[in-house]
Amino acid sequence: MTRSKTPEDTRRRILETAERMFAEHGVFSVSNRQISDEAGLGNNTAVSYHFGSKADLVRAIYLSHREPTELLREKLLDRCAGSTDLRDWLTCLVRPFTDHLTSLGANSWYARFTAQLMTEPKLRELGLVEVGQTALQRTVSDSLHRCLPDLPPAVRAERDEMARTLIVHVCARREPGATDDSAALWNATAVGLVDALAGLYEAPATPRD
Amino acid sequence: MTRSKTPEDTRRRILETAERMFAEHGVFSVSNRQISDEAGLGNNTAVSYHFGSKADLVRAIYLSHREPTELLREKLLDRCAGSTDLRDWLTCLVRPFTDHLTSLGANSWYARFTAQLMTEPKLRELGLVEVGQTALQRTVSDSLHRCLPDLPPAVRAERDEMARTLIVHVCARREPGATDDSAALWNATAVGLVDALAGLYEAPATPRD
Repeated sequence: MTRSKTPEDTRRRILETAERMFAEHGVFSVSNRQISDEAGLGNNTAVSYHFGSKADLVRAIYLSHREPTELLREKLLDRCAGSTDLRDWLTCLVRPFTDHLTSLGANSWYARFTAQLMTEPKLRELGLVEVGQTALQRTVSDSLHRCLPDLPPAVRAERDEMARTLIVHVCARREPGATDDSAALWNATAVGLVDALAGLYEAPATPRD
Repeated sequence: MTRSKTPEDTRRRILETAERMFAEHGVFSVSNRQISDEAGLGNNTAVSYHFGSKADLVRAIYLSHREPTELLREKLLDRCAGSTDLRDWLTCLVRPFTDHLTSLGANSWYARFTAQLMTEPKLRELGLVEVGQTALQRTVSDSLHRCLPDLPPAVRAERDEMARTLIVHVCARREPGATDDSAALWNATAVGLVDALAGLYEAPATPRD
């Protein structure tokens, strides 16, 4: 007799399966039917029943990671309150992502999923822009900007985009190597990213017209 | 009567169509049959007849951009010979890509194609590693490293990866905006990248065990 499943079990199963398949094959290569099959659900309409459209499913995967990431960010923010050291705020930018990846261990697909989301031309807005920045993310962003009073706002915005791109894509490339000692991998990755981003943000900007 | 086509016309048409479709939908979402249809070729086997496997096709697209990019790199290298200024070598790293994108004008898909190639976990090796660095790329890389004698080799390798990631993904995000004045867009992008990468490479590295 198979163990009876609650709707919550089924939802979680769909989220995990879809995340892995999207990360591996790209969001548009995978149908809801393939996700249902791979998740071992008899019912082909399970995905749309539980999540609605593919956009809703993508957003649900993203949101399932947001709460644990926000908790990590909150703790780091408590430690950095009032700091005017750029590296502290870069730590608040990088570590919630890498520490969350550490907590996911060897079976994480989240970095690759996020990278796919940033690369898919049609999905970028859908997945992240609608969801918006959280209040804590805004605090990190504002505090980081206060450490860079001389950087023209347009250059600052450009470097914010570079920082996000770098964090997500570097982690996505490392993620397949997160096997036995994922904590060491993600710690080294975070150290390398904070060092590099400190240089990236502090670099003088060539004047432009 | 339709204009008769040489095999060279057909090959070029397949390359352009496949590049755009791969850039838009991801390499694994697009079948050879869909490429043949979209390219308006009657024959469904045209792609495999002209290129072989999908891996061969991906490599052929990449190689079709390599010669013009190498010519741009060669010119820049002539101007920088003997320089010990990091920014000169970063210019040789960034500008061949952005200047080639400028020459492609408003209809370029090459940055997004390359970004897909870097993001697809299965394609990364296949597309670029097998092809290898060119002699000119190696010269740029070696000269750049000589400007950073104090950076531990492992950190230097990490930053090389970050630089490649940043150049390709930043350009991929900007490429849809390459409309009327693509030269201005790519010039501003190159200036911003060289500034940011100078800081990224010169940032002190936190000692690691």
